[in-house]
Amino acid sequence: MSKITEVENSRVKSFNSANMGRVKPGDSLIKRRRDVNHAASLQHQYEECERTGRIDNFRITAGVKEGELSNRLAADSDVYKWIEAVAFDVGSGYPPEMKEKADEVIDLIEQSQEGDGYLFTPYIVDRTAKRWSNLVSDHELYCGGHLVQAAVAYHRATGEKKLLDVAAKWADCAADRFGPNAHPGTGGHPEVEMALVELYRETDEKKYLKLSEFFIEQRGKGVLNGDMKIQDHLPVREQSTMEGHAVRQLYLLCGIADLYSETGDKSLIDTLEKQWSNFTGKKMAVTGGAGARYQGERFGLDYEIPGRTGYYETCAAIASFMWNWRMLQITGTAGYADVMEKALYNGILSAMSLDGKKYFYTNPLEHDGCGSISEHMGKGPGRGSNRRSTSHWDRTACCPPNMARLLAGLTGYIYGLNEDSIYVHHYLENEATLHVQGADVVITQKTRYPWEGEVELSIDTPGELEFSLKLRIPGWSKNVHVNINGREPSEAIEPETYFTVTRRWSRGDRVVLNFPMPVEKVAAHPRVTDNSGCVALRRGPVVYCTESTDHPGIDIYNLSLLEDAEIGFEYVEDLLGGVVVLRSEAALNGGTQELYEPLENRKAVGRAELTAVPYFAWANRTPGAMRVWMPIKHL
Amino acid sequence: MSKITEVENSRVKSFNSANMGRVKPGDSLIKRRRDVNHAASLQHQYEECERTGRIDNFRITAGVKEGELSNRLAADSDVYKWIEAVAFDVGSGYPPEMKEKADEVIDLIEQSQEGDGYLFTPYIVDRTAKRWSNLVSDHELYCGGHLVQAAVAYHRATGEKKLLDVAAKWADCAADRFGPNAHPGTGGHPEVEMALVELYRETDEKKYLKLSEFFIEQRGKGVLNGDMKIQDHLPVREQSTMEGHAVRQLYLLCGIADLYSETGDKSLIDTLEKQWSNFTGKKMAVTGGAGARYQGERFGLDYEIPGRTGYYETCAAIASFMWNWRMLQITGTAGYADVMEKALYNGILSAMSLDGKKYFYTNPLEHDGCGSISEHMGKGPGRGSNRRSTSHWDRTACCPPNMARLLAGLTGYIYGLNEDSIYVHHYLENEATLHVQGADVVITQKTRYPWEGEVELSIDTPGELEFSLKLRIPGWSKNVHVNINGREPSEAIEPETYFTVTRRWSRGDRVVLNFPMPVEKVAAHPRVTDNSGCVALRRGPVVYCTESTDHPGIDIYNLSLLEDAEIGFEYVEDLLGGVVVLRSEAALNGGTQELYEPLENRKAVGRAELTAVPYFAWANRTPGAMRVWMPIKHL
Repeated sequence: MSKITEVENSRVKSFNSANMGRVKPGDSLIKRRRDVNHAASLQHQYEECERTGRIDNFRITAGVKEGELSNRLAADSDVYKWIEAVAFDVGSGYPPEMKEKADEVIDLIEQSQEGDGYLFTPYIVDRTAKRWSNLVSDHELYCGGHLVQAAVAYHRATGEKKLLDVAAKWADCAADRFGPNAHPGTGGHPEVEMALVELYRETDEKKYLKLSEFFIEQRGKGVLNGDMKIQDHLPVREQSTMEGHAVRQLYLLCGIADLYSETGDKSLIDTLEKQWSNFTGKKMAVTGGAGARYQGERFGLDYEIPGRTGYYETCAAIASFMWNWRMLQITGTAGYADVMEKALYNGILSAMSLDGKKYFYTNPLEHDGCGSISEHMGKGPGRGSNRRSTSHWDRTACCPPNMARLLAGLTGYIYGLNEDSIYVHHYLENEATLHVQGADVVITQKTRYPWEGEVELSIDTPGELEFSLKLRIPGWSKNVHVNINGREPSEAIEPETYFTVTRRWSRGDRVVLNFPMPVEKVAAHPRVTDNSGCVALRRGPVVYCTESTDHPGIDIYNLSLLEDAEIGFEYVEDLLGGVVVLRSEAALNGGTQELYEPLENRKAVGRAELTAVPYFAWANRTPGAMRVWMPIKHL
Repeated sequence: MSKITEVENSRVKSFNSANMGRVKPGDSLIKRRRDVNHAASLQHQYEECERTGRIDNFRITAGVKEGELSNRLAADSDVYKWIEAVAFDVGSGYPPEMKEKADEVIDLIEQSQEGDGYLFTPYIVDRTAKRWSNLVSDHELYCGGHLVQAAVAYHRATGEKKLLDVAAKWADCAADRFGPNAHPGTGGHPEVEMALVELYRETDEKKYLKLSEFFIEQRGKGVLNGDMKIQDHLPVREQSTMEGHAVRQLYLLCGIADLYSETGDKSLIDTLEKQWSNFTGKKMAVTGGAGARYQGERFGLDYEIPGRTGYYETCAAIASFMWNWRMLQITGTAGYADVMEKALYNGILSAMSLDGKKYFYTNPLEHDGCGSISEHMGKGPGRGSNRRSTSHWDRTACCPPNMARLLAGLTGYIYGLNEDSIYVHHYLENEATLHVQGADVVITQKTRYPWEGEVELSIDTPGELEFSLKLRIPGWSKNVHVNINGREPSEAIEPETYFTVTRRWSRGDRVVLNFPMPVEKVAAHPRVTDNSGCVALRRGPVVYCTESTDHPGIDIYNLSLLEDAEIGFEYVEDLLGGVVVLRSEAALNGGTQELYEPLENRKAVGRAELTAVPYFAWANRTPGAMRVWMPIKHL
């Protein structure tokens, strides 16, 4: 079986991931988004890489084209992420329609590489003088990391070694430059740390693991000026809170988790767990978003999780997904899978338009309908808008190809395998052929998750086979019962656990789970004062929002949920690609346009029907206002 | 009568301000703060100016001391503001205890001035090469403006001309440099605009008015790189919203108002009124605070008025007070006086500690009790703390001396006079001798305002004298009746107006006003989503907050006001220098430490007594948490 998922062969882990190519999704929300990714996004992203000179950069450094480089310092990485997305797309069973293009680009990359392995297009043209000269701000190591990730994915998906050789040669070059007996230094934007562990796993070359360790251990020694914004304020073992640039912090934690999984150094898992507690207990948006603050794209204070001015970069939610996957794989603890699910169905899927061509860079929890708040926030145009755009490609375009590789690789995160267990981490319609104890076990999930909570698992074994089936019970899920082969259902199972069924399985066994999906009114910790007196609506893993487009003639800011009103739900196939919408009677509040006035003025003057749609699907219709957190009356 | 207030002799105005020296305050909240300012702050600020080299800078440039300059680019202005504070202190009748020190410093300033009038200590040592070289970031024109303001105030208070001559010589130097027939340019930090108008008023030298106009008209022409942060994005007439650095924006508006008052150019008052609507309708904190955002100390988006992460620089609230005074003087419209009062009793007084030696630079509406949020916000330490400090002096110290000059000059803002009217803008215990129609009218206010709403005005005229008494009815005040000489009271008067009593007054006339002061629950506009489901408590002009120190054993974040609970109030003489406190039964809410959980968990589990103290007095006891906006149950 080809090794295609990210984390394999590690020393400390609860399970291996199942080969993504062996998981065949049926119709579901996720499959629809993946199909769009395959059919539209990959092609469109290639075209944007061409249009904006990102591929021409490699043509120029390869010597096959004359011209000026488009010297964006992270531009190479966007091409690498696109290649990685193509690898996952091919590897998970889609027709290899983009592979030819990817192979052409890989040829250009190979031709661009310098004799000693150095590869970073801006400094190939400028030659060696600028190499490694500005680790704080340049993205050499970051781009190198993405090269390595793309190469490993491509090798696993296709068995082709060309890009892997380039990546290994680049890593050799980096290993010559950096290390205890060479130069100090580490990257201002983490990424290479996790990539190098993966390269070690793919090549069994221990120096890559050592180099990853070196880069991680360099932090807090001042090589990046001690800057908290880029995680250099403390040695990693002393970092106990999520600080600084969110994507950088989360990528660093991915690297630390990977290092831990290879070394088992307990002090590393300690820092990871402390930071996870800080993240999930004090800094994560209800959508799984990470990095509250525009300025520095960074984590805010504890409980600083604003709605309208929140940043929540797409890449940060993806990075959280990646980190939590690593933590899940290490520990087998269900809470990590919950965070993955929360991010996926909310703050990640929100980034992509229905047509797969336009993206959000930021994913705030509120928009007032008045254009982009980005300029006010000290960021370029196009962020903080209520319209997804393609304009990222003209500047920083990290998010779109990150989204593409995540969607393309999603089938690798559904199942986990170890000697005597099959983990079911995530629920969606699919058929998977899993290799357990030398046999192929076929698991079929029939479900309309996340829109309905019923999941029917068929387990087909070649003969009788004893193993444990570990079923994740989501944290949001109360009163779950498991029913095996139609017998008496289990007692209600504790949420946020894995429920283990150990038995001798045989062809035709059926496990039925039912996750009740009432609409929940979720309150935030009272110190999240942005949300005082407000609730978010959630059903299953999906968080909802209220959009003005569903409320003609009403200012949605004048709507309050009623605590006792029943909230109905309905699947609407022809809305937003097929979603469940919520409907409820709401209070319509009075008030003037005064900034401050007596409370009495703001009392309800009537009722109105409130419609809520999944947050991830907002801003796909007439642009307007949107709110996740809604005031609630009669607490 | 000596001319001591800022705005006199202007062309477009509703009234002249009364001479601050003729208003003698009796015991009141304001007098207590002024007494502390006189007895402690002025001396302490002088010492801090000495300790931090601000006065030594002048000794060095005067050639009476060797050494290195402490080259803070706004340091000169702090000394000038302190001189202005001393001038107002002396001019309003306090013993001239600091005058000797001020005269010594004025001598140093005079000796520091260059032959051509240039005066800015950093570039005296560096000599002329750096002069006017960086108008965007340097503070030459800003410091010059403060020199002029101090000089005018000192001249009006003492009749002494030395500093005024220095200031005029400096202004001549600036007028040689800048102008339609000289160099383009304007200051990155407005301030000089209003100062030059005042200098024109004091000297009748029209070129200073012309220079002010030039600086104002330069904006929007790109001389400051078109930067919105420093109000160069548009010509002033096209600026319709409050943008950029709050103090700069508000000082600019002061200058524009002064220019308008001299020129009557209607297009200027139009932009002022538009911006006032934007400020008071969409950007002003309930405390009168201005400038929501840490980053850039700037105005946020419309309705971006956060609590905990709000900035609300002390100087910005003072600048708003100054601007609104100018608008009031121009128009005689009560709404401007309301904004002055709101800022004064809340977001301005909050800046100073009870002992008058420690200050807040920022005045947020919430503090979680966990140290300073400043570093996180990209600012130096000491801001965003729940402890006032003296540490400003080691860096930027604009706020403390700004506070000192404001408090020292406050008696100039109480009354207004024109040919046939006396305006009573603000209420506080005092006796004032006002020159009307050639006669001295003595007005005595007996009141415990702002703690009680009853005001008794005695009007003593030398004989019978007909004039209009214009009594401000605050915007917060409903059901006000005026009673003259014990006769039938008037009908209820419209809030936010001036109530005019025109009659022939004679000795012993008595006017009694009663402003009912119920405790009000104030709601914010629904687009201020930081405050959804919350109210602020206000009684009279005073906004309240809840502090943890009054709630031992209770996390104030678990308290919610009850909509129908009666809120009691009581004056407590020995608390916080004498304040009215509020008390009410409140809900004590349950909940775990989870970041998100079902609303049911957060329901009330009991009751607790909530105590609220005036916001301005917070952080004078055991440091802890503080909230202005409190959640309310049963809306």
